[in-house]
Amino acid sequence: MRNFKLIIAYDGSRYQGWQRLNDSDLTIQGKLEKVISEMIGSPIEIIGSGRTDAGVHARGQVANFHTNSSLTTHEIHRYINQYLPQDIVVTEVVEVSHRFHSRYNAKSKKYVYAIWNHWIQSPFDRKYSYYFPTELDIDAMKSASRKLIGTHDFIGFSSLKKVKKSTVRTIYEISIEKKGHLLNFNILGNGFLYNMIRIIMGSLIDIGLHKRDVSHIEEILANKNREDAGMTIPPHGLFLEEVHYQ
Amino acid sequence: MRNFKLIIAYDGSRYQGWQRLNDSDLTIQGKLEKVISEMIGSPIEIIGSGRTDAGVHARGQVANFHTNSSLTTHEIHRYINQYLPQDIVVTEVVEVSHRFHSRYNAKSKKYVYAIWNHWIQSPFDRKYSYYFPTELDIDAMKSASRKLIGTHDFIGFSSLKKVKKSTVRTIYEISIEKKGHLLNFNILGNGFLYNMIRIIMGSLIDIGLHKRDVSHIEEILANKNREDAGMTIPPHGLFLEEVHYQ
Repeated sequence: MRNFKLIIAYDGSRYQGWQRLNDSDLTIQGKLEKVISEMIGSPIEIIGSGRTDAGVHARGQVANFHTNSSLTTHEIHRYINQYLPQDIVVTEVVEVSHRFHSRYNAKSKKYVYAIWNHWIQSPFDRKYSYYFPTELDIDAMKSASRKLIGTHDFIGFSSLKKVKKSTVRTIYEISIEKKGHLLNFNILGNGFLYNMIRIIMGSLIDIGLHKRDVSHIEEILANKNREDAGMTIPPHGLFLEEVHYQ
Repeated sequence: MRNFKLIIAYDGSRYQGWQRLNDSDLTIQGKLEKVISEMIGSPIEIIGSGRTDAGVHARGQVANFHTNSSLTTHEIHRYINQYLPQDIVVTEVVEVSHRFHSRYNAKSKKYVYAIWNHWIQSPFDRKYSYYFPTELDIDAMKSASRKLIGTHDFIGFSSLKKVKKSTVRTIYEISIEKKGHLLNFNILGNGFLYNMIRIIMGSLIDIGLHKRDVSHIEEILANKNREDAGMTIPPHGLFLEEVHYQ
């Protein structure tokens, strides 16, 4: 069996998220599996590096699939992009070792959360950033974000209901870039819990508004209570940017 | 009477263009007039710097309207943006001399035409650039664009049927910026004929493909025949960027 790794960019606006739900669904995985199965002539399952929620975008989602097909990577690449809807694009196809697993082997992921921080909205960025017109104290948000770096139990920043597995994760880096009225929060970590980034962002916004002190981050980490953290802010500001395998 | 100048950005995707057609239309002028008339309490006409075609975008369209209203510019600005659809945004409101006329006083306009020049499309730029996967000879296009600079009769680059007025225009500058796979053509001129930029771009593409020589531009200018020029390429790569008044 050959194993193909795909890098995928998508505008998540009209999708129910990455994960296939049923035959007639509007999911990224579902769309990809349909096109690839038709290409190969038999049903295929693709393995994603992880789920993205409804409305979340990606510039660098990774997936892989196994096949006996003798098509070249270039033929596969051309075919998939020809038949995918315009809001999903495969940017790279690489043949990889049969052992490669896009979820198990993922070492870290980079997400970007984009906030449009000005009362005058941009008609071109409105679907790709969270409109937040009130001024934010970026320095306070930077200080607060530094409290998140490191290995912590992030359960307080998650919407998880039942927890069986470990909720300890490591955040390596959070940086904030300002491009005009757009604030890009770059978050690199070894993995993220359900809704974790959107709740972290909601909590950082509370601090940027001075509704909470910078030290509030440490309280949420210590108390492990979802109620303490900020709101889950909308999905359309969030991008899965990169998945790293080493 | 007071006179207010507006700067307007819009995503033209779902509109029939700038100019109001009838009461139930989907035009930028129509949407603005509806909101401003409701604000003021009586029907108002707004004057645009010029039309943009169906599907064309703007970052800096200019319009003005006269009113006896005693609202402040800030109140007007807030009201308009609150009631406009999300794909039209007023970025500036300034009270100007009663003599200011956004069309008659416009000295020059800058347009940008964006080409996505790579076979792998971007899901985020697809509505804001013309997807053109074949490689283009940018240097040839640059040389050709220099032949357009200056004062010429541009009738060969227009879809105008009946011509009564002068079709002589001046192009001051054409520059090409490459940002990743995106080619932005910046075109500054004192005015443009119907479809002129899209036909210029179609002609430059023919030259970028080596279907035509650089000298072909001079032939179109000399022969004044629409048939000689390239195709009218799609509206969704075109942005009205700025309107200059001095």
